[in-house]
Amino acid sequence: MGVREDVFQMKAAAPYLAATTREQRDAALKAVADALAAARDEIFAANARDLAAAEKSGVAASIVQRLRFDEHKLDDVLAGIEQLIGLPDPVGRMTLERELDEGLILRRVTCPIGVIGVIFEARPDALVQISTLCLKSGNCAVLKGGSETAETNRTLFAIIHGAAVAAGLPQACLLQVEAHAQIDELLNCDDCVDLLIPRGSNAFVRYIMDHTKIPVMGHADGLCHIYVDASADFELACRVIVDAKIQYPAACNAVETILVARPIASEFLPKLGAALAQADVSVRATSEAAALLADSCAVETIAVDDFREYLECTLSIALIDDVVQACAFINEHGSHHTDCIIGADDEAAATFMRLVDSAGVYRNCSTRFADGFRYGFGAEVGISTAKVHARGPVGLDGLVTYKYQLEGEGHIVGDYASGARSFTHRDL
Amino acid sequence: MGVREDVFQMKAAAPYLAATTREQRDAALKAVADALAAARDEIFAANARDLAAAEKSGVAASIVQRLRFDEHKLDDVLAGIEQLIGLPDPVGRMTLERELDEGLILRRVTCPIGVIGVIFEARPDALVQISTLCLKSGNCAVLKGGSETAETNRTLFAIIHGAAVAAGLPQACLLQVEAHAQIDELLNCDDCVDLLIPRGSNAFVRYIMDHTKIPVMGHADGLCHIYVDASADFELACRVIVDAKIQYPAACNAVETILVARPIASEFLPKLGAALAQADVSVRATSEAAALLADSCAVETIAVDDFREYLECTLSIALIDDVVQACAFINEHGSHHTDCIIGADDEAAATFMRLVDSAGVYRNCSTRFADGFRYGFGAEVGISTAKVHARGPVGLDGLVTYKYQLEGEGHIVGDYASGARSFTHRDL
Repeated sequence: MGVREDVFQMKAAAPYLAATTREQRDAALKAVADALAAARDEIFAANARDLAAAEKSGVAASIVQRLRFDEHKLDDVLAGIEQLIGLPDPVGRMTLERELDEGLILRRVTCPIGVIGVIFEARPDALVQISTLCLKSGNCAVLKGGSETAETNRTLFAIIHGAAVAAGLPQACLLQVEAHAQIDELLNCDDCVDLLIPRGSNAFVRYIMDHTKIPVMGHADGLCHIYVDASADFELACRVIVDAKIQYPAACNAVETILVARPIASEFLPKLGAALAQADVSVRATSEAAALLADSCAVETIAVDDFREYLECTLSIALIDDVVQACAFINEHGSHHTDCIIGADDEAAATFMRLVDSAGVYRNCSTRFADGFRYGFGAEVGISTAKVHARGPVGLDGLVTYKYQLEGEGHIVGDYASGARSFTHRDL
Repeated sequence: MGVREDVFQMKAAAPYLAATTREQRDAALKAVADALAAARDEIFAANARDLAAAEKSGVAASIVQRLRFDEHKLDDVLAGIEQLIGLPDPVGRMTLERELDEGLILRRVTCPIGVIGVIFEARPDALVQISTLCLKSGNCAVLKGGSETAETNRTLFAIIHGAAVAAGLPQACLLQVEAHAQIDELLNCDDCVDLLIPRGSNAFVRYIMDHTKIPVMGHADGLCHIYVDASADFELACRVIVDAKIQYPAACNAVETILVARPIASEFLPKLGAALAQADVSVRATSEAAALLADSCAVETIAVDDFREYLECTLSIALIDDVVQACAFINEHGSHHTDCIIGADDEAAATFMRLVDSAGVYRNCSTRFADGFRYGFGAEVGISTAKVHARGPVGLDGLVTYKYQLEGEGHIVGDYASGARSFTHRDL
């Protein structure tokens, strides 16, 4: 049977999963955690086979590290499931209750989106996190993980799916897709998949966005900026910039471009250059910025058009007139992910937060805080740079939609059109 | 200059419109209302030219009626603007305020989406409603109206745009597109248009959805169902069904398919047939339903696969076992717009509202209530059957997104990774 047929079955099952109670879904999550804990040895053995295959095929040691699923990772995902069970039910929240007329009551109630397709990188813990987030929020999920951890994924999926179904959730609540070729089949399921969440490289996410009519939630680029205002504390600015760059350079929320206000450039840039040199950050800069940096660090001179998302210990530096120019630069060159102003001037900060059109607008802190765990969402399925639906780090709230329930006593519209009755529109 | 260049200018201006205050936007709306009222004669003259051209080209009288923009319609849109000014500001609402750690405060604040493209039918009042909804919510809008009212649209647009800019909003806040060929150009602006709202025929909306990478909000089909449960009051059922069909048959929320519980079919259908005959509704039914209807009304026997959205005084009738089967039927054959159960049984109603996967799930009232005005939203830009972002009738709330603002005092992520600091995650 092809992916399409499977996903159609899932679509039919989705309303039944959506109609389960919080107790049923939390009990299933508990069963999943217990089953994972009981199958430790099986999981580690599968992962050992993946790691051996990766090493044999010459995968870099730093990558192999990400494929590893050990005692520590298992404990992490089990703690994550425990935390998820404790989180409030995102489903069934009443966000509006209004009397339209006597006996005619409108309610807006959150409900699961339905069928979510998640295509994610080779990190086995991501499979556990994503599938449990979807079950907690009452969504069916089609999961396609990175092929480098195929054995681990297959083992984890069988355990999770088996435990969820044994606990009473519909057979079609979760589906695993393994072949890379099946991704294109999934992209064509716009009549039965409600939302796609791709995670991975820019090129991969962009490919997904360009080849499907299914709504896509996620981000391709993470080209984050820090603007150092004329009112900035230099020491604070250097500390935040270094953290935002080196704390995890490959992350989408790492800073890539620094904009420095001209009035402080000659005084600030030598200090920043020294801090970056000490942190082993490679510096590229426009010629005018490079001239001010040259005494403190090695600089490669490049044009603004060559500024980009490095995802490594490299960043670009340019000068800018003021906060308004900085906002215009960021809106034009950025990726609407997370951008920050460093400065003591409240007015400049307010301007920055109003004018910058990004999911995260920060002041005096590292862009690396853009993350569902750090925001206190428990976990995230990803970070969205879209303007519709969820934006920024997406937790359980981004996995639900709502429906309007209207209960009457035989009310008809003709009575309101004729003037026989009129609406009260009274919030309850 | 092409549409693309204009929309790019609009994209650059969008953050400045987004940064305006409620007072500025409401003052602009007041100026728009005053300018429209002052230009009555000019507007009516333009509309007269459109109506004359429509009549000359043989447009049906019923359609010509919709193109008309007279004293009554002007009063309606002026009252609409007045109401819009009185509505709370959808922008700048804080929906989350959380201390992540001492001195590190996260806020989630609503903000405009940015640039919205609206393609709408030949109804001049729609141009006024849509442009003022977008201005109230701080969004730039590209407007393409039906060509049958080109003169009226051009006149209305010039007045609205002129008044808004004179009141201080950015020059690029509104843009009118007139040539049909420019629609395809607009559909390709996925790098500068954030959301498209198409209104019009199924085929037209589907064309838009199939030919753009811009997120689309709207509905192609409105195939609404009413399920008559075994617990239904027959008189109530007939009254609601007749209203849902004939009150405005061309509307997307008019009922198209009636499902009748088998246990009551032989008793109920003759009553329904008589009510439909009296209301001049053409009836199509499956053979088993037709047999029970034949004595009370004229019936054409058709198969379930031929049930469709009629948008006229015609409906389809089939028998069904129970509420669970009805929900499965509706989820498979419906358009996820608005569906209703008629019945006194609370358990059946609760099952229906949980299992039916539609934007509106109703009990004992007409499907025609699915409308932004009737829901008390003031006005609507359209009705969405999408599962992400806004669902159902979309008012101001559906025209905003949010951004996360994070303010710190030099906080860096390294301190949390090392364990030197930890998150407090305390909602304020």
